[in-house]
Amino acid sequence: MNNIEHIGIAVKDLETSNALFAKLFGKPHYKEESVESEGVNTSFFKVGSNKIELLEASKSDSPIAKFIEKKGEGIHHIAYDVDDIEAELKRLKTEGFIILNETPKKGADNKLVAFLHPKSTNGVLIELCQEIR
Amino acid sequence: MNNIEHIGIAVKDLETSNALFAKLFGKPHYKEESVESEGVNTSFFKVGSNKIELLEASKSDSPIAKFIEKKGEGIHHIAYDVDDIEAELKRLKTEGFIILNETPKKGADNKLVAFLHPKSTNGVLIELCQEIR
Repeated sequence: MNNIEHIGIAVKDLETSNALFAKLFGKPHYKEESVESEGVNTSFFKVGSNKIELLEASKSDSPIAKFIEKKGEGIHHIAYDVDDIEAELKRLKTEGFIILNETPKKGADNKLVAFLHPKSTNGVLIELCQEIR
Repeated sequence: MNNIEHIGIAVKDLETSNALFAKLFGKPHYKEESVESEGVNTSFFKVGSNKIELLEASKSDSPIAKFIEKKGEGIHHIAYDVDDIEAELKRLKTEGFIILNETPKKGADNKLVAFLHPKSTNGVLIELCQEIR
């Protein structure tokens, strides 16, 4: 597990939140991307060397819609950059963590991603992501 | 606002969670520190260039105890490093953010800290921290 690749924040309305976070960070988002398979519209901010990903549900059964319904807007996940996602998932499974995606899937920002169940990680939804070369 | 200085995670029991996150990150925490004024015991992990701070309540009226009671264990805040905390608080107040600590206070890890109210930041508790020189 290397650096934090990004932090994901669940928002109700991407346009409103893009304006809010631009004020907070003192600069606008640099890209938007929709991931239809995940039911999300995303936007990205860069602050120093760190990325923040805002996540808006694009359909009513999106995991983001469910998250906001249950917990409200806020921090959704921490994503760690890994060199070899398959090897890291294998290591974490052996350590007793619950893997939500045994087979990594295509996420936003040209990444292969997999999540760990927050039940096994102190309530923190952890994403592993590996750049697709 | 510069890099993310750390991410704070609320935990029920520091010892249990130290063991859990050591498995997750593949290495142990490198220090512990109590901040009596805040009612917290903390431990720090470093993964790549990023710090993770685990926060355990050290008294029943600690903000961490209240957070866990309301939301359960999980991500508590994102802390951004700033060069001049007073100037940044002034800028953010002008932008309409609600400042929880008009006068920055002494936090863990030799920092002056101040928080923004999550009501004004899409449900995300943001900490600003400036190294005490």
